[in-house]
Amino acid sequence: MSQPTVSRALRDDPRVSAETKRRVRDAANLLGYVPSDAGRALSSGRTRRIGLLLTDLSNHFYSHIISPIHRELESQGYQLMLHAEDADTELVAERLIGNGLDGVILATTTVDSVVPLRLRDRRLPFIYFNRTASVVDADATVVSATRGFEEAVRRAADLGHRRIGAVLGPENTSTAASREVALRAALAGHGLALVPELVRRGPFDTAAGDAATTSLLSLAEPPTAIFCGNDVIAYGTLNAARRLGVEVPGDLSVIGFDGLPAAGWEIIDLSTIAYDLAEMAAEAARLIVHRVENQDAPLVRTEFDTRFVQRHTLAAPR
Amino acid sequence: MSQPTVSRALRDDPRVSAETKRRVRDAANLLGYVPSDAGRALSSGRTRRIGLLLTDLSNHFYSHIISPIHRELESQGYQLMLHAEDADTELVAERLIGNGLDGVILATTTVDSVVPLRLRDRRLPFIYFNRTASVVDADATVVSATRGFEEAVRRAADLGHRRIGAVLGPENTSTAASREVALRAALAGHGLALVPELVRRGPFDTAAGDAATTSLLSLAEPPTAIFCGNDVIAYGTLNAARRLGVEVPGDLSVIGFDGLPAAGWEIIDLSTIAYDLAEMAAEAARLIVHRVENQDAPLVRTEFDTRFVQRHTLAAPR
Repeated sequence: MSQPTVSRALRDDPRVSAETKRRVRDAANLLGYVPSDAGRALSSGRTRRIGLLLTDLSNHFYSHIISPIHRELESQGYQLMLHAEDADTELVAERLIGNGLDGVILATTTVDSVVPLRLRDRRLPFIYFNRTASVVDADATVVSATRGFEEAVRRAADLGHRRIGAVLGPENTSTAASREVALRAALAGHGLALVPELVRRGPFDTAAGDAATTSLLSLAEPPTAIFCGNDVIAYGTLNAARRLGVEVPGDLSVIGFDGLPAAGWEIIDLSTIAYDLAEMAAEAARLIVHRVENQDAPLVRTEFDTRFVQRHTLAAPR
Repeated sequence: MSQPTVSRALRDDPRVSAETKRRVRDAANLLGYVPSDAGRALSSGRTRRIGLLLTDLSNHFYSHIISPIHRELESQGYQLMLHAEDADTELVAERLIGNGLDGVILATTTVDSVVPLRLRDRRLPFIYFNRTASVVDADATVVSATRGFEEAVRRAADLGHRRIGAVLGPENTSTAASREVALRAALAGHGLALVPELVRRGPFDTAAGDAATTSLLSLAEPPTAIFCGNDVIAYGTLNAARRLGVEVPGDLSVIGFDGLPAAGWEIIDLSTIAYDLAEMAAEAARLIVHRVENQDAPLVRTEFDTRFVQRHTLAAPR
């Protein structure tokens, strides 16, 4: 018997014959069917549950996207199910598929992740939030780093910075790659370049920013300004500078990326490249609902523009 | 037919007769039974999924408990399903009940919440993490604030602080209440007291700490030290002091609670009352699994002890 027929029979739909309804009801009774969510999932194939896959929940970035996604999903009659995992492995893909979700928002995709492949193979709708993987196309909400870096680099160049350092994110993320491209292009526009000696790479976390900055500041000629892959890395850069007695912004200017709320705190006051993160999260919720309800609709990629936010940590070098 | 019988029949258990197996299989086939998670939930009544209810995910505190809970549950063969909600309402209780969870960790309970009542009525096992509600008893992992406040107050008193302020958490949380009791008892031990003029209350967030501190610092005789309901409130206290040009710790000492990782950053360097938050989160995972698997076991309440961590923000008053 087809799923729609079973579903209609359980709903007492007049299109289903009395005999079929009786058989379905008997089967349901025999199996101890209760009108639970699991039962609805079995009978209708829909749960109105959207998964959000995160592999790095201790990163403060993700704390700020969950509420906007949740609120937007709720307003459309969907529930948010957070899947906190350590990595996006085969096992994680199987869990997403087995959990009766209508769709998934992938927020921590790496370019080499198997999850998009598995979800596509099993026809579970998904979208990319922030990070994308080129191996499978899907709807996406992404950040365009270009304008933010142009504004930030222009300001740094105008202030006289020439020796520019960078602490970039992991090479297997699309976000680290696109920010590096935008930073290099903006620097080139002012006759500047990132020399390999002044570039460090690592995870998007505070410890990575701290370690990379400690290394950069130990050079005979350290950079006068460091562009950080995100704000969370920049917090680590500020920690290392404070510990080493390097004055910010006198001895070292620091520029972040994301514009997280804490970057605006008086005790941090980080110059950063910002965009509307809450709106981007809400848009991700809208995209996945649209995809779940219109599986053949054309792909949508929503780009959020960036702007430079001048705060305490960028000033003229001594 | 009983759930265990259906479950055994679907597993082809030899204790089930061939006739029963045939009937169950026919019913499952008719309903389009697939060996999915939803199917397993229907047939066995168990999903090996544990819910974690959080109503304030933008609070950095919660970022730090999710990974330890997830890791411990995974090691015991359970999955973590995060339920991010805005408040713990009837609707939220219904969702938890409808989502086929084996058990729930309640992490943001208020003393007036209906969720514990509803879960008890529907026999869905749950435990309290950090915050408890006295209306329904359940296993709990909690913090004992006494020793931490004794150590912190002794240090503040030894340094010469007499005019003590406090920015406490919401009155409808057990954590705010127990910290206030511990703070007042510790102060009394040194002949000190919290005078009403120097006490503020509000949500456990940075904005609340900022507003309360701005108010306290506008008094004709402001406090020389402020005890904060948690570290996140204390960040707001530090922000307000910085904005108002009040020097920490020279003009104002600040003491937090929780010992979050960011409190130890060089750029924050907050004196705080700490405990093993990651271990407390892991213990919560162990308690809920034990409860799910032993519904009649006696109640367990695990208390985590606190200690004072001296950092930059506590020193002698001018």
